[in-house]
Amino acid sequence: MHDVPKTTTSAPGLRERKKQATRNAISEAAVRLAAEHGVENVTVEAISEAAGVSPRTFFNYFSSHDDAFVMINDEIGERIRESVRAAPAGLTPLDAVREAFVAELDGFEDRQELWALQSKVLQRSPHLIQRGLNAHVADERALAVTLAEWLDATRPGTERPGEYGIYPRLLAAVSHTAMRIAFEHCCADPEENVLTDAFQEAFVHLAHGLQRPTE
Amino acid sequence: MHDVPKTTTSAPGLRERKKQATRNAISEAAVRLAAEHGVENVTVEAISEAAGVSPRTFFNYFSSHDDAFVMINDEIGERIRESVRAAPAGLTPLDAVREAFVAELDGFEDRQELWALQSKVLQRSPHLIQRGLNAHVADERALAVTLAEWLDATRPGTERPGEYGIYPRLLAAVSHTAMRIAFEHCCADPEENVLTDAFQEAFVHLAHGLQRPTE
Repeated sequence: MHDVPKTTTSAPGLRERKKQATRNAISEAAVRLAAEHGVENVTVEAISEAAGVSPRTFFNYFSSHDDAFVMINDEIGERIRESVRAAPAGLTPLDAVREAFVAELDGFEDRQELWALQSKVLQRSPHLIQRGLNAHVADERALAVTLAEWLDATRPGTERPGEYGIYPRLLAAVSHTAMRIAFEHCCADPEENVLTDAFQEAFVHLAHGLQRPTE
Repeated sequence: MHDVPKTTTSAPGLRERKKQATRNAISEAAVRLAAEHGVENVTVEAISEAAGVSPRTFFNYFSSHDDAFVMINDEIGERIRESVRAAPAGLTPLDAVREAFVAELDGFEDRQELWALQSKVLQRSPHLIQRGLNAHVADERALAVTLAEWLDATRPGTERPGEYGIYPRLLAAVSHTAMRIAFEHCCADPEENVLTDAFQEAFVHLAHGLQRPTE
């Protein structure tokens, strides 16, 4: 299921992957320390030490103390956009997005514990929720731009850019919403509900125009 | 277009409407004062005076100072749920939600200026964003519960409650998302974009399974 996006997207180089691993190690350390001690009691020095980097290195990866708690796995958005750009013209737009998200789902389950921890940390620090929310909206808008470009690039029979109205923004936002609902569904009962299944179920509903479910 | 929900939903009594008007006057006063002076400089006394009520009355309507800035027009969620409960069994679930939202759209345009002001106020007070976000999620979940009940009540041929998986939560969340995107689309260019049109466009896309738009 994950083959398509992984083979059509050019894999990042070793250097890029090492940078990403460092960035993830820093934000993971930040979230774990904040869950224990509270955001306001966790210094850049403490985060850096826990992640095995210097404070100077910290600021190569994050422009502020607060960003380390908010920006965990912010490479996912860019990977999803990269997958959409590489999606074959024959896919429906909804399937192009679905496949791009599916390629990330394995990772989601591994990261579930850390994200639940981050969610607790943010609930105690409203100014970080605001930052997270703004980052989320920026991500959603960036996906909408990528989708509009992909619609043009894969448009049959004309070179003219299309007029899509609210469609690209809607598709991007609804896809994020479907992902969120699938995630919440699994967090509510992790023993019973499998994220991949819930996600696919959501996209089947979307593809069928959200019709009344049949049993 | 607005006739269906207004005639099928029982109108609230005069007393209820007067209470709602007072509540709206208080939160409008709160938002306007905060936009000018900042949330932290606006007291319950100042809000009450501007709204023409006593501070004691304020606390009959809002359980805290902060709620007055966040909870503007929070009766809309309940009215939407009331419309869904009253929706005829022959409607698709998506149309039941669409008609419930449409009944509120006139009001949305009147309130656009106040909501834009509220949005500015919240951006400057992250703890209020968190409150607003939690209220929004609670609203979305309440709509999902109402939808599940309506699906059961209008289910042909059986008394058994249905198993809907993530469908009610997805439908509720996606409908809210469509409303948000239509609203953002109009705020981006209020001269050009009409909220009702953008909203209907969004729901046509949803009903058609978010297919690639044709021109």
